[in-house]
Amino acid sequence: MKEVYKKSIDLHNNLKGKIEITNKMDVNSKEDLSLLYSPGVAQPCLEIEKNPELAYDMTIKGNTIAVITNGTAVLGLGNIGALASLPVMEGKAMLFKKFAGVNAFPICLDCDDTDDIIDTIRRIAPVFGGINLEDIKAPESFIIEEKLQDLGIPVFHDDQHGTAIVTLAALINAAKVVGKKVEDMKVVINGAGAAGIAIAKLLRCYNVESELCVSIKQLIVADSQGAIHRRRYDLNSAKTELLKYSNFQDVEGDIHEIIKGADVFIGVSKGDVLTKADIQNMAKDPIIFAMANPEPEIHPEEAFEGGAAIVGTGRSDYPNQINNVLAFPGIFKGALKARAKTISTEMKLAAAFAIAKSVEHPTKDQVIPSALDTSLADIVANAVEQAVYHERELEAEIEREEAKLKG
Amino acid sequence: MKEVYKKSIDLHNNLKGKIEITNKMDVNSKEDLSLLYSPGVAQPCLEIEKNPELAYDMTIKGNTIAVITNGTAVLGLGNIGALASLPVMEGKAMLFKKFAGVNAFPICLDCDDTDDIIDTIRRIAPVFGGINLEDIKAPESFIIEEKLQDLGIPVFHDDQHGTAIVTLAALINAAKVVGKKVEDMKVVINGAGAAGIAIAKLLRCYNVESELCVSIKQLIVADSQGAIHRRRYDLNSAKTELLKYSNFQDVEGDIHEIIKGADVFIGVSKGDVLTKADIQNMAKDPIIFAMANPEPEIHPEEAFEGGAAIVGTGRSDYPNQINNVLAFPGIFKGALKARAKTISTEMKLAAAFAIAKSVEHPTKDQVIPSALDTSLADIVANAVEQAVYHERELEAEIEREEAKLKG
Repeated sequence: MKEVYKKSIDLHNNLKGKIEITNKMDVNSKEDLSLLYSPGVAQPCLEIEKNPELAYDMTIKGNTIAVITNGTAVLGLGNIGALASLPVMEGKAMLFKKFAGVNAFPICLDCDDTDDIIDTIRRIAPVFGGINLEDIKAPESFIIEEKLQDLGIPVFHDDQHGTAIVTLAALINAAKVVGKKVEDMKVVINGAGAAGIAIAKLLRCYNVESELCVSIKQLIVADSQGAIHRRRYDLNSAKTELLKYSNFQDVEGDIHEIIKGADVFIGVSKGDVLTKADIQNMAKDPIIFAMANPEPEIHPEEAFEGGAAIVGTGRSDYPNQINNVLAFPGIFKGALKARAKTISTEMKLAAAFAIAKSVEHPTKDQVIPSALDTSLADIVANAVEQAVYHERELEAEIEREEAKLKG
Repeated sequence: MKEVYKKSIDLHNNLKGKIEITNKMDVNSKEDLSLLYSPGVAQPCLEIEKNPELAYDMTIKGNTIAVITNGTAVLGLGNIGALASLPVMEGKAMLFKKFAGVNAFPICLDCDDTDDIIDTIRRIAPVFGGINLEDIKAPESFIIEEKLQDLGIPVFHDDQHGTAIVTLAALINAAKVVGKKVEDMKVVINGAGAAGIAIAKLLRCYNVESELCVSIKQLIVADSQGAIHRRRYDLNSAKTELLKYSNFQDVEGDIHEIIKGADVFIGVSKGDVLTKADIQNMAKDPIIFAMANPEPEIHPEEAFEGGAAIVGTGRSDYPNQINNVLAFPGIFKGALKARAKTISTEMKLAAAFAIAKSVEHPTKDQVIPSALDTSLADIVANAVEQAVYHERELEAEIEREEAKLKG
C-alpha cells in the first residue's frame, strides 16, 4: 500500500472522526440551563415561529450548510455507498471550516432514487442555510440540483460549478500571461460529464452575462466519441443543450483533430488522452488545463515539450493546481452572509473574477492561488455577497420601472 | 416579558447558534490535505466499504447522534414547526456534549406524515450512531420509534423513556428514605401520554425483568377521565395495552378517588390537579412526584402541608428536580461505546439503578442527583455499556444451549 494510504488509515483511526460538535458557551449553572434550554429557550422559538427569517440570527442556520451525498460517484472510486463516503464528506466539512469558518455537516443518504433524494433534502432543509451536493452520479445530480432551486436556500453541486469557477479563474489569468484576449480564443473542452458541461455553461455566461461581456471565438466540447455537433444522433439532453452555445461551425472529428489550432485545452476526462504532437498542432502559446485525476490528460513535462505556454492540473505536486477548494468555501460564506436563496450565475462569475484578481501578478507557474491560501475565501465571499446585493438592486429597479409603467 | 425570556433572546442573538462544527486537526500543509482529503481519504473509504463496522472507528459515526424532531410537540409550546424548534434541539445537543462528550446534531424535519418521517430517518441514518427522537407528538412518536427498532442503531424517544428512567431512579431512593419496599407500594400515575405510559411500562419491567425482580402491589394509571380500567370503552390501543400490567382490581373513579391509600403519586399531566386533602387521604409518608411544567400537579408547600414525606417536581427551583438530563447523555454514551443496536429494557433499568445508586445517602431533599452533576453521565454510561455486554452474553449462552440441543 502506498505510504499516503497507510498514513491516512492511521490518522482516521486515531482521530475517530475528523470533525466534532462543540458548544459555543459552557453550561455551568442553573441560570445557564434556563437561558440555553428550558424555560428561556421558548422565547427564541416563538419569535422564529412568528418570523422565520430570525432563525438566521438566533440559530446555527445562519452559518451552517449540509454536505450531501449518496455515495454514488465518490472521488475516482465510483459507487461505494453512503456510509463509505463519510470520510470524504468529513474532509470536505473540514475545508469549509478551515477556509471559511462555515459549519458544514455531512449527510450521507442511503438512497438512490432521484425523487427520494429530493424529498429527503426538502425535509431536512430547515436547519441549514445552504446545501452542497457532492459526489452524486450524473445525470441524477443535475436533476436534483435543478429541481431544488426553489428550496429557498442555495443548492450547489460542487462537482459541476466549483470546477467551472476555478477553471474560468485560471483561464482569465492564463490569457493575461500569454497576452491573448479570452474573446479571441478557440477553446476545446474534453469531457462532457458534470464538470465539462458546467465549464462550458460558465464560459457561455462569461460571454453574455458578465459585465465584461466578451465572446469566445470558438467553443467545442468533445466526449468519448469526439466533437459534439449537430449531425450526431447519440446525444443525451444535456449534450444537445450544449449545442445552443457551442460548436456553431459544427466541426467534426476526434480530440486530436479538433484540438488543431486551439488556444485552450480543458480536460475533464481521463488520463493520457493527448500527446506532444497534439500540443504542437495547437495555436501559438497554448494553454493546457489537464485536470483528470490522478493521471492528467497529458503530463506537464510532455505538454511543455510540445510547446505549451501554461499547464494546470488537478494535482498538488505540479504548479497551477485547479482545485475546488479555491471556490466553495468563499462561495458559501458569501451566500450565507447575504442570505442568498440560490447561487446565481452572477455569483459564480463574481467568484471566478475574484479568484483571478487575487493573483496580483499572474505568471506561467501561478495563474491561480495556492489551495492552502487562507485569505482567499474572504475575498471570494465578499465578491459573492456584493453580487447578491447587486442582483437585488437590479431586481428592485426592474420592479420600480414596471410599477411606473403600470401606474 | 419575563427576565429569563429577555435574557435568552439576547443570548441567542449574540451566539448566533449555540453549537458549531470544529475540526479535530488543523489543515496546514499539502500533506495534511493529502491525508485528510484527496487522495489519502480513498483508503478509509474502501476499508469501510468492505467492512461497514469500521465506520465506528474511522468516522464521526462512533460518537455522533442525531436529535430529530418535526416540531409538533415542543416544550409546552405545541406544534411550532421544524424551524422554530431548532433552538430547543441545539440546546439538547449542548447537553449531550457537556455531560457526555457525545456529538449531537439537530435535524428538524419539515414533515408531518409518520411514514415520511420513518423513511427520512432511515435514509439519513448512515452518519449517526444513534437517534434521539424529541418533541414529536403522540401517537406518531410511538409508531416512529417502534418501526425504527430494526434500523441497526439505537432509536430512543427521550420524552418517553428519559422521563421514565429518572422517575424510577427517584422512586427507588424515595422508597429507601421512607423505609418502604417498592414491592409493597400502591402507585398512581396521573397522565397517560408518552411519559405516563413509558413510566408504567418501566415500572412493570422493574417487576418482571430486573435482577431485583419485585412486584409493585398495585399500579393504577389515570387519564383525564379517571382510572383506566377494563369497563371503559373509550380507550386507545396504548391505554388498552396498559391494562395488561395495571389495575388488576379494575378500580374506578377520578384521581381524587383512586389516590386514596396510595403510597406514590406520579403526575405527568397538568398543573393544580391535587389538593392538600388528596395528600391527607394517601397512605402514611406518601411520595409525590408532581412533574407537570411549569405548574406542578400540586405545589411542594401544599403537598408537605398535606403530609407528603417526599416531593419531586420538574422544576429547578425546588429540591428533587426530575430532569431527563440525568439519563439521556449517559444512556447514549454507553450505547455508543457498546455499539448497541437498540436501547433495551435492560439498558433502561441499568440506567435507573445507576442514577439511584449515585446518591450515596438519599434524603427527603435529595432522592436524585443535581441536574448539573457532571460525573453522573459516566456512571450511567458504564452501567448501560455493561448491560449490553450482559445481554450479549445471555444471547450467546442461549445460542450455545440451542446448538447443544440440536447437536
